[in-house]
Amino acid sequence: MKPDFSKGLLPAVIVDDLSGDVLMVAYMDETAYQKTMETGQTWFYSRSRQELWHKGATSGNYQSVQSVFLDCDRDTLLVRVNPQGPACHTGKRSCFFYEVTGEGIKEVQKEKGKKNIFDQVITEIQN
Amino acid sequence: MKPDFSKGLLPAVIVDDLSGDVLMVAYMDETAYQKTMETGQTWFYSRSRQELWHKGATSGNYQSVQSVFLDCDRDTLLVRVNPQGPACHTGKRSCFFYEVTGEGIKEVQKEKGKKNIFDQVITEIQN
Repeated sequence: MKPDFSKGLLPAVIVDDLSGDVLMVAYMDETAYQKTMETGQTWFYSRSRQELWHKGATSGNYQSVQSVFLDCDRDTLLVRVNPQGPACHTGKRSCFFYEVTGEGIKEVQKEKGKKNIFDQVITEIQN
Repeated sequence: MKPDFSKGLLPAVIVDDLSGDVLMVAYMDETAYQKTMETGQTWFYSRSRQELWHKGATSGNYQSVQSVFLDCDRDTLLVRVNPQGPACHTGKRSCFFYEVTGEGIKEVQKEKGKKNIFDQVITEIQN
């Protein structure tokens, strides 16, 4: 069994392994997937630049892969990472900083779900 | 500001609002997005059936929308939901039940990140 690249690029949901927060979604072709598995860092295929993209190669914000999951249809990847810096090109920790509400779309002020001391204590108890 | 549907369907990452786990990724066109915002339940565009798809209409496993986020490029959605049943058509809670390891791809036995009593207590303390 392997990811199904027959239909083209696959979306990869990048999750912060510590907090569980979704950091970004990017796309992988088979080469990017293989590079990711081989190097333990995230590689994507940039749709805008149409080229292989080693996340962090320019910014230094590499993402260290902790675990990789495939969905039931084998056409979506979920990659849990330890980020070495912000995931977003804007400098924000996560790319999902716009909240859609009944009053429109506004920038999220306080980023949710950041692992805090309570969560860390609980994680310790559980392990 | 609104989601950018100019390039076609947008991936929507569906997250369990309670546990923070990624449940599934599906696609929305503008109609599915509007229906989702209007009804407070998830609607998608099924790429295989090529039709609007009200999640749960057949299975009863509706997803009640708690919050919606848009990414920096406005071409990916993140929807936090309270699921009324399994997200996956296989009956599993999450579609991401295959783990890719150095020894190949294997089904995850124990689903990770399920909200347990410890997390619930901490959530109460924080609120």
